[in-house]
Amino acid sequence: VTRFFESPIPGLEQAYEGEPLHEERSGIQRIQVFDNAAFGCMLVLDGLVQTSERDEFFYHEMLVHPPLVAHPSPERVLVIGGGDGGTLRRVLEHPTVREAVMVEIDERVTAVCREWLPSIAGAAFDDERATVLFEDGDAYVRASGEPFDAIIVDSSDPVGPGAVLFGAPFYRACRARLRPGGVLAAQVGSPLYFLDEARNALAAATEAFGAARVYLGPVPVYPGTLWAYLYAGPDPDDGSAEARAEERKLDTRYWTPEVQRAAFALPRFLADALSAAPPPKVFGE
Amino acid sequence: VTRFFESPIPGLEQAYEGEPLHEERSGIQRIQVFDNAAFGCMLVLDGLVQTSERDEFFYHEMLVHPPLVAHPSPERVLVIGGGDGGTLRRVLEHPTVREAVMVEIDERVTAVCREWLPSIAGAAFDDERATVLFEDGDAYVRASGEPFDAIIVDSSDPVGPGAVLFGAPFYRACRARLRPGGVLAAQVGSPLYFLDEARNALAAATEAFGAARVYLGPVPVYPGTLWAYLYAGPDPDDGSAEARAEERKLDTRYWTPEVQRAAFALPRFLADALSAAPPPKVFGE
Repeated sequence: VTRFFESPIPGLEQAYEGEPLHEERSGIQRIQVFDNAAFGCMLVLDGLVQTSERDEFFYHEMLVHPPLVAHPSPERVLVIGGGDGGTLRRVLEHPTVREAVMVEIDERVTAVCREWLPSIAGAAFDDERATVLFEDGDAYVRASGEPFDAIIVDSSDPVGPGAVLFGAPFYRACRARLRPGGVLAAQVGSPLYFLDEARNALAAATEAFGAARVYLGPVPVYPGTLWAYLYAGPDPDDGSAEARAEERKLDTRYWTPEVQRAAFALPRFLADALSAAPPPKVFGE
Repeated sequence: VTRFFESPIPGLEQAYEGEPLHEERSGIQRIQVFDNAAFGCMLVLDGLVQTSERDEFFYHEMLVHPPLVAHPSPERVLVIGGGDGGTLRRVLEHPTVREAVMVEIDERVTAVCREWLPSIAGAAFDDERATVLFEDGDAYVRASGEPFDAIIVDSSDPVGPGAVLFGAPFYRACRARLRPGGVLAAQVGSPLYFLDEARNALAAATEAFGAARVYLGPVPVYPGTLWAYLYAGPDPDDGSAEARAEERKLDTRYWTPEVQRAAFALPRFLADALSAAPPPKVFGE
């Protein structure tokens, strides 16, 4: 049994015990899988827990369904990152989707997840609407090509290979690859402990898209549980979510139209902090 | 420096490092205070973190403002527990309140908090509208006496001295001590790791009040962060929250009328689990 832990700020730790199942260094990062009594198999990249078999639905449903439900008919969807396949799977649950392109930088992450955490992707990798490319997501977005109705950025944190996916140049490239009426969503970190991540991403996306918002959802395996998502696109609260969810027969465990609406209601300190420059520290000294 | 940790389920730990400032055993429980780099002074009862100087507003605002804002004019309010004074303070922020009675079973908790974490109560203990009694909350509610407009149960978990505050007999007694149109709110634990606490409390309150609901809010120092609150009373989403917040000049850091509305939107798995008997395990085996 090994102990894995993350310390988002000094004096606080979220720690897991687990049976190590797999470990390797890809050219890009260290990939580990361990088996935890509470969460089942967990994926760890460069020491940071990315997802688990049992809690993955919190994150993947809240990353994918708000943007796709806000779009009246998403047909072509781009997923940047998301090597475990959980985001791709939720995208493909929308029957409007005709083509989903997933661009993951590290082929080994997908290979490891298909071996050790296959339930997260389900049958997504075998769906004939799915195209999986192992290349740099930033470069893919910048290259010319057919535009998308939605871009979902399912990256690791803005350290290491994921850093470029949090800046204005990347968001401008995303906007250029979106059709009119298109939508973008991205994970942007802990609003409690890494608020500057969310704030910088929000500022960059606001610059690129003219307007952007942050919404929230809990992810039990992430430090501090509460997580922030970036959103740029049509009004997610225009009253059509219920009808679209029903039309598309979405079968969810976390997401509901009401939960989507609620996710955009930010606590006052957070709404204030996201618009302040520089952002105040919520915790720590 | 000492390490404090809670393990809500096997294989998971939320741990803090801190400088021990105070430790004693009252007749009722072990009381500890330590100073943590992230959260400031933290109160620990029988090994479980109760609150901290820096995150207390998440919990106290979400425990107090939803029930009091749902009431058109709360004048007499009862607080059961809440020895740190943070709940009493938020109750007294409603200018409609003419009398707030706080009934805390352990006088030493209040004494320790007044010494080490005085910012949580602010000036609440000196407010002439406040009456602080050190006695058994359950017995107080059962005794005959003037009725209240709101009862806020700010207890520790349903182990040890707090256990009786989660059952149907207690909730029936609360209902009997409420005026018509009265409201009750209570903390009922982690919906991720101790779901049966919330579910049992909800079933007991539904039996006592005819109807009850659960709402959610994050509390950073609690294990799993996401927390559940029990609610029985007038419709909290009748559209009057904005006007009442303004009328009462509520100055909040977490709560807003929108956040209150959002807090009642439960994720699908949780809504399902709260109504299932016995509740399924979300995490663990």
